[in-house]
Amino acid sequence: MTVQFTAGDYAARMQRATDAATAAGLAGVLVGPGPDLTWLTAYRPTAITERLTLLVLAAGRRPTLVVPALERPDAVAATGAPAIDLVDWADGDDPYAVVRPLLRPDGRYGISDSTWAMHLLGLQQALPATSYAALTACQPMLRAVKDEHELARLEAAGAAADAAYGEILGVRFAGRRETEVAADLAALLRKFGHEQVDFTVVGSGPNGANPHHEAGGRMIEPGDTVVLDFGGLLSGYGSDTTRTVSVGEPSAEVRAVHEIVRRAQQAAFEAVRPGVPCEEIDRVARQVITEAGYGDYFIHRTGHGIGVTTHEPPYMVAGERQPLVPGMCFSIEPGIYLPGRFGVRIEDIVTVTTHGGRRLNNTDHGLAVVA
Amino acid sequence: MTVQFTAGDYAARMQRATDAATAAGLAGVLVGPGPDLTWLTAYRPTAITERLTLLVLAAGRRPTLVVPALERPDAVAATGAPAIDLVDWADGDDPYAVVRPLLRPDGRYGISDSTWAMHLLGLQQALPATSYAALTACQPMLRAVKDEHELARLEAAGAAADAAYGEILGVRFAGRRETEVAADLAALLRKFGHEQVDFTVVGSGPNGANPHHEAGGRMIEPGDTVVLDFGGLLSGYGSDTTRTVSVGEPSAEVRAVHEIVRRAQQAAFEAVRPGVPCEEIDRVARQVITEAGYGDYFIHRTGHGIGVTTHEPPYMVAGERQPLVPGMCFSIEPGIYLPGRFGVRIEDIVTVTTHGGRRLNNTDHGLAVVA
Repeated sequence: MTVQFTAGDYAARMQRATDAATAAGLAGVLVGPGPDLTWLTAYRPTAITERLTLLVLAAGRRPTLVVPALERPDAVAATGAPAIDLVDWADGDDPYAVVRPLLRPDGRYGISDSTWAMHLLGLQQALPATSYAALTACQPMLRAVKDEHELARLEAAGAAADAAYGEILGVRFAGRRETEVAADLAALLRKFGHEQVDFTVVGSGPNGANPHHEAGGRMIEPGDTVVLDFGGLLSGYGSDTTRTVSVGEPSAEVRAVHEIVRRAQQAAFEAVRPGVPCEEIDRVARQVITEAGYGDYFIHRTGHGIGVTTHEPPYMVAGERQPLVPGMCFSIEPGIYLPGRFGVRIEDIVTVTTHGGRRLNNTDHGLAVVA
Repeated sequence: MTVQFTAGDYAARMQRATDAATAAGLAGVLVGPGPDLTWLTAYRPTAITERLTLLVLAAGRRPTLVVPALERPDAVAATGAPAIDLVDWADGDDPYAVVRPLLRPDGRYGISDSTWAMHLLGLQQALPATSYAALTACQPMLRAVKDEHELARLEAAGAAADAAYGEILGVRFAGRRETEVAADLAALLRKFGHEQVDFTVVGSGPNGANPHHEAGGRMIEPGDTVVLDFGGLLSGYGSDTTRTVSVGEPSAEVRAVHEIVRRAQQAAFEAVRPGVPCEEIDRVARQVITEAGYGDYFIHRTGHGIGVTTHEPPYMVAGERQPLVPGMCFSIEPGIYLPGRFGVRIEDIVTVTTHGGRRLNNTDHGLAVVA
C-alpha cells in the first residue's frame, strides 16, 4: 500500500535541499525539469523543451518556480505547489532576466545535472559573477537515502519485476525475435502495476555481449543464453532487475560463466553494510570475476542508485568513496561479456539496512532453462 | 516514398555544421545526445544518462565521437559512423579528460542546447579558457532549411496526421473521457505510420483554455468544444496539427471565436514568403486576434520549427528577425483561450516555397461537429 506524498512532504524535501546547500557553502540550488524537480515538487512538465522552467531554492526566501506562462496552470496543480511562489514569463520575454533578481549576483549555485546547457549559459550570461556546480557533484546524496514511503514504493516495484520474471520463464523463446520477448516483458511489467516501462533488454546469443543492446530482430535459437534486463516506474519509483536464462540446456562453459557472475553478485551483496564505501562493492564483485580470469570482460561499473529514476547516485564504481548509509537503494549487477559469443548478467536492487543489505528483487539466481 | 539517408548524407551535414561554425568564428561544435546528434550522425543512444556522449566537430580534424565504452557497439552501428572517429572511456575514467585533447584550450564552441549542464560544467572545469554558446543561439538555422528528402518525410508525417484527424471525427466524444479520445488519436497516428507519438492533447470545455493541457479524466459533454493537438515522428520526422471540434452544435460565441482564429491562421499563412522575418508571421496572426478584441487571450507565440523534433528553430515570435528561407518548415497555430470556459486553436505545418507558403496539413479548417 503506497502512501500519497503530501504538500508537506515536498515542502520538507525543499527545505532539506536548501539547508544542505547552505551547509555546503552554496547560495542555493537551481533545478530544471527532470527527476530532481519531480522529487522536490511533484511537478513534471508535459514536455521538456527550450522554454525555461527553473526552481530556485535559497535560504531566506520561499521556493520560487519560474515557468512559461502557458504552463502555469500545470505547475499550480502540482502537489508541492502550495509551498512555492510561481513567477511566469511569456513567449518573447527574456526568461533569464526573470531569474536574475532571484539570485545573488556573486552566488555559487548547485544546478540539476540534466538542466539544458542553453539555460546554464543563459544564467552565466545574465549573471556573469555567479558560479555553478552540478547537483550530483556538490550534493550527490540529496535523493540517495530513501524514507520509508519511498522504500515501500521501491519494494513494490521490485516485487512487480519479480512477478514479471516469473511469468516470462513460461513464454516461448526459441524461434521468436528478441523484440517479441521484449514486448512480452513490457506487457508483464504493466500487468503487474508499472505505469512506465523504461527498458526491456533481451540480449540473445552474441547480442548478450553488448551490455546496452536493447532488443532487435534477431531470432532466438535453441542453445542461446539470453540476458533479460528490464524495469520502469511503479508509483513513480523504479525497478531494474536482470536475469540470464538459457534456451534449452546450457553448455558447460555457459554454466561456469554464469556461476562466476552469481558468486560475484552474492559476494558484493554480502559486502553491503553502513559505512562501507561504494567503491568497495564494485571492488568485491570485480575481484571474484578477475580471479576467475574474466576481469577484462566485466566492462562496466557494478551498480547505480535508483529512486524516481532508474539511474542516479550513489554509483558503485572505483573512486566513489561515499560510505553506504541505511536507506540507500542501488543495483548490484556484475556481468561477463564475451564479444561475438554471449553475455551473462545478474542484477538485484539492494537497500542498505542498519546491519547489512536487503534485496528488493528475490527471484532465484540459478540459470533458468526456458523453451 | 522516403529515401534512406546515407553515410554520405551524414558526412555532408557534419561538414556543413563545421563550415558554418568556422564561418561564425567558432572553434567548433559540441553535440550531446538528442536531435542534433540524430540529425548529424543518425546515432541515438538507447538512453540519455549521466555518462558523457559528445560529438566534436572542428575544422581540420575528422568528426570525433566520445562515447562510454559499453555503448561503443551501438555507436559503431550508426549510419553516420563511417565518417567519425570513435574515442571511448570506461566507467571510473574522467570523461572530460578524454575530451580535453580534442578541443582548443582557448576555443569558443557551440554546444547543443540540451546537452546536460553537468557536462558543460565538466568541460568548463577541464578547459577553463574555453567559452561556449548554445547551438540555437550561435547557429539557430543549422537544421532549419530542409532538403527534399527531409521535406518528403515531413509531408508524409503531415498526411498521416490528416488521415488520423479524418478518422477521429467519426469516433464518439460525448460521454467518454479525454484520455480515451487521446488513446484513439495515438492509435490512429500509429495506424497511419507514426513510429512515435509525442503528444495527444484533448482539451475539452474549460480544459481547452489551457494550451498545454494534455488529456485528463474529464468526461466530454454535449456542447463542449474540444481542442485536438497531436503529433509524433514518422520516418524520424515530425507531425503536429491542431483542430478544434464541437460536440454537437456550437454556440454562436464558439462559432465567432473559431472564425477569428481561422482568419488569424489564414492571414499568417498568406504572409509567408522568403525574406519575411519570422516575427512578422506572429504579428499578422496576433493582429487579427487583437483587432477582434481577444489579444489578451492569445497567450503564446504563433509557431515553431519542426524536423527531427516537434519543437525547434525557427520560432514565429516577437523579436525573431530571422528572414524566412525556402525549405523552412514550421507551425502556424494561433489560439484564443478563455479561462474556465473553452479554447480554440488551429495549427498547420507550413513550408516556405520560393514564392510563398505551402501547407503540409490539409484538412478542413471549418468547425467540425462531432457526436
